[in-house]
Amino acid sequence: MSGRVFVIGTGPGSPDQMTPEARSAVERSAEFFGYRPYLDRLSLRPDQKRNISDNREELHRAKAGLDRAAAGANVCIVSGGDPGVFAMAAAVCEAIDHGPQAWKDVDLVVVPGITAMLAVAARIGAPLGHDFCAISLSDNLKPWDIIENRLKLTAQAGLVIALYNPISKARPWQLAQAFDILRAILPAETPVIFGRAAGRKDERITVSRLRDAEASTADMATCVIIGSAETRIIHRLGRGDLVYTPRFIAAATR
Amino acid sequence: MSGRVFVIGTGPGSPDQMTPEARSAVERSAEFFGYRPYLDRLSLRPDQKRNISDNREELHRAKAGLDRAAAGANVCIVSGGDPGVFAMAAAVCEAIDHGPQAWKDVDLVVVPGITAMLAVAARIGAPLGHDFCAISLSDNLKPWDIIENRLKLTAQAGLVIALYNPISKARPWQLAQAFDILRAILPAETPVIFGRAAGRKDERITVSRLRDAEASTADMATCVIIGSAETRIIHRLGRGDLVYTPRFIAAATR
Repeated sequence: MSGRVFVIGTGPGSPDQMTPEARSAVERSAEFFGYRPYLDRLSLRPDQKRNISDNREELHRAKAGLDRAAAGANVCIVSGGDPGVFAMAAAVCEAIDHGPQAWKDVDLVVVPGITAMLAVAARIGAPLGHDFCAISLSDNLKPWDIIENRLKLTAQAGLVIALYNPISKARPWQLAQAFDILRAILPAETPVIFGRAAGRKDERITVSRLRDAEASTADMATCVIIGSAETRIIHRLGRGDLVYTPRFIAAATR
Repeated sequence: MSGRVFVIGTGPGSPDQMTPEARSAVERSAEFFGYRPYLDRLSLRPDQKRNISDNREELHRAKAGLDRAAAGANVCIVSGGDPGVFAMAAAVCEAIDHGPQAWKDVDLVVVPGITAMLAVAARIGAPLGHDFCAISLSDNLKPWDIIENRLKLTAQAGLVIALYNPISKARPWQLAQAFDILRAILPAETPVIFGRAAGRKDERITVSRLRDAEASTADMATCVIIGSAETRIIHRLGRGDLVYTPRFIAAATR
């Protein structure tokens, strides 16, 4: 009889932001598959087995987990944040789609989590308070000209833009180019939030304006949120700035 | 001395999807402000005071909560889902932005939650597995022609589209018109997910194709997710269909 595959999200890292549903999935699983920093967020029992794989080996990890579940094991595939946002749930579905019939028979349970942009937004106010999008800036996943086109159209549409995978050693120039593309469309004063490791000890959240946003402020653990023309900054004496996007757009402000 | 305002999200409704961080904020608050169905999700002590207001009175509710916090109370303003996505965090920021100095002095803590589109996506696979956007279909919030323009540009951009506030008694025709706009741009076979009350007892998740998507399938509690041209449906014998958007776009598939 087939086992079950849980695909869970740990949230951004703080144990307080991992749901009871995800915690329960962890307790009910015998074998764990994931990138080491995400598995390290879990407190596992001695009888629970860890299978660590590299961050880039998502499809391989999905197949390994499905194989074990098809053999009867209860398996937990672990993502940071939400497993459905640029993470393991899509890799597992891809593996099932193109894999053997036995993988379609596995009981698949995807457990949602707090994705990075929601955690970053909460720490700074409500920048995602109106229409927004989430775009991966990784041109390992799609050609750069598709990314450019998406940035242009979503900025023209007036959406707030959350950028995942903004920068890495292998992709050093893409974020600066994204800012240049957006500067040609959005006001120079548009707020830009660099949200690093939200809710973790090494959290660093900074607010800039699009005019002087520096790509080097971001690293691999950063989610970058670029406001719309409506997004506002509130200065507070003795407290950090708040950034929010109003709920309403009046006809006249178009 | 000012009190604190927590702005929390309960998640979609299942207690298992509410984070420990949100639960802790509830325990530490004396006065609660919110729409009745969201407050009903909390188990409050007899000493904790409920202030119920109508769903449409967001700014009034925000001001009432800030007033009590400025007077020294610890206050919890309650949203369903995530407070930063079409919910109370933006209303509270708006009130602070335009309100008295005392409201800027209040200690504001926004606590993220599982927003509807993530919960719906998890129940059906991984439809948000690549770039996506969240758009409110309410033309109480912005003129309809802005909504039309956003639908056209995001569909042209190839983003998966999650529609919040798709339909209500006062807004009966907008969702059908949105489908018509998208039919002119996206393939007829594009998957459409109607995700109602994800994770609750009255959950109902159905998958259709854009060609025959019926607006009447949705109600106020539904989040509608429209795939991109890449989004795929996996049929499984004896199990429900899965819907996912692959992580990669090859250059040739543009």
